[in-house]
Amino acid sequence: MVLVSPRNPLNIGAAARAMANFGFRQLKVVAPFAATWRDARSAVGAPELLAEAVETATLAEALADCTLVVGTGTLTYRKPEQPVVSLPLLAPLVSRELESGGRIALVFGSEKHGLTREDLSYCHVLVEIPTDPEQPSMNLGQAVAVCLYELAARVSLLEVLAGDKDLAERSESAEPAAASGRLELLAGVIEETMNAAEYSPRAMQPANRHDLRLMLRRMSLSAHDTRRILGIFRRILWRLKRTSDSDKEPG
Amino acid sequence: MVLVSPRNPLNIGAAARAMANFGFRQLKVVAPFAATWRDARSAVGAPELLAEAVETATLAEALADCTLVVGTGTLTYRKPEQPVVSLPLLAPLVSRELESGGRIALVFGSEKHGLTREDLSYCHVLVEIPTDPEQPSMNLGQAVAVCLYELAARVSLLEVLAGDKDLAERSESAEPAAASGRLELLAGVIEETMNAAEYSPRAMQPANRHDLRLMLRRMSLSAHDTRRILGIFRRILWRLKRTSDSDKEPG
Repeated sequence: MVLVSPRNPLNIGAAARAMANFGFRQLKVVAPFAATWRDARSAVGAPELLAEAVETATLAEALADCTLVVGTGTLTYRKPEQPVVSLPLLAPLVSRELESGGRIALVFGSEKHGLTREDLSYCHVLVEIPTDPEQPSMNLGQAVAVCLYELAARVSLLEVLAGDKDLAERSESAEPAAASGRLELLAGVIEETMNAAEYSPRAMQPANRHDLRLMLRRMSLSAHDTRRILGIFRRILWRLKRTSDSDKEPG
Repeated sequence: MVLVSPRNPLNIGAAARAMANFGFRQLKVVAPFAATWRDARSAVGAPELLAEAVETATLAEALADCTLVVGTGTLTYRKPEQPVVSLPLLAPLVSRELESGGRIALVFGSEKHGLTREDLSYCHVLVEIPTDPEQPSMNLGQAVAVCLYELAARVSLLEVLAGDKDLAERSESAEPAAASGRLELLAGVIEETMNAAEYSPRAMQPANRHDLRLMLRRMSLSAHDTRRILGIFRRILWRLKRTSDSDKEPG
């Protein structure tokens, strides 16, 4: 589970407690406020996993080894750019990813603003907790508890239901998905290639980067295909650079 | 929803917020600590339903009009005296009760001790949130959120799934269940009858009262049958009293 810039130590504690209640172990915290983070970790009765939590400077770092990134938040005021799944229907998606050997991250934004548009661009899918339209915004600790309960209860239920099938066989037939860090590497090389090809004016580059990140996640690339595409773009980039160098030489 | 003697105003606020998030309206609070209750209601941003919450002196009063009472809590340290349902399987039970026109109460105990054995004797069924055995005890506000999420999501899902059947028809065929207050009235008359018949020594009477309460809930009595049984016991009681009076007269 990943918390992005949480502001209230009580909420970090509540999130960690819900993780312990439902058997989740690995917490990553992105760019926490120093005092908040210190207070949360030193609180009386803080679950052990809080001491072992990993702090990262950026969301990209926290997600580097994840193959399915699930963003959370209220979607009332924003048009989502990714597929949205209602929480009661998330379990089959997660089960499938686990079966093919993937790693899943559930990402929560700060209490005040939730996940930013940039944060969301790292997500393959957004999950929505079905709440009353008159009071859609949940407390962070409660939202975490509800999401982890749903996954703990339904994913294990699905595993029980699927128990008669041969899990190992299915695992082999499924292609392992590309980790978030690999997609970022690919996005970087593609962007460099686009710039080398003078694809768009400088002012458009942040928007292009954003769209590219979203598109790569929509494609559900396997690790194998990601490596292949990376090779292609590296080759193109090398050619582009040589060409522009040779352009300059005679000029 | 019913909270029994909550101790922390923040938890009352969190419970009320979860109710608002998932579209629940009626909160009853049993014997709250005066300062706690005042602080919770006057908190900034307290949901409207907190202002309209009903305060009762006893749990029996709070439950008087309910036909299905669901108790919550960690069952690790106690052998339950009622049927226990895992939360992911509670929705069908609740749906059936709603279809037959029943009223449901979900009861939460205080943060420190949960529901007492006496509190639990008013419950038809206990619900257990499936948690990690190493960290089974949940924060009150989070436990409330998880239970209400489950009911809001699955009960409405079940209603959608059952949408093709004729709901009105099924409602008529189902017998309306007896409300908790009627069962208490019946228990009182039965107990008086047992005492009049000198069923057991005085020292056993509290234990008998407890067992009687549990048994009446196990029987899932309809409102109609409850009225009938009440009539029978009232008649027996009247005979017993007349007999004992006439015993005395000649003596």
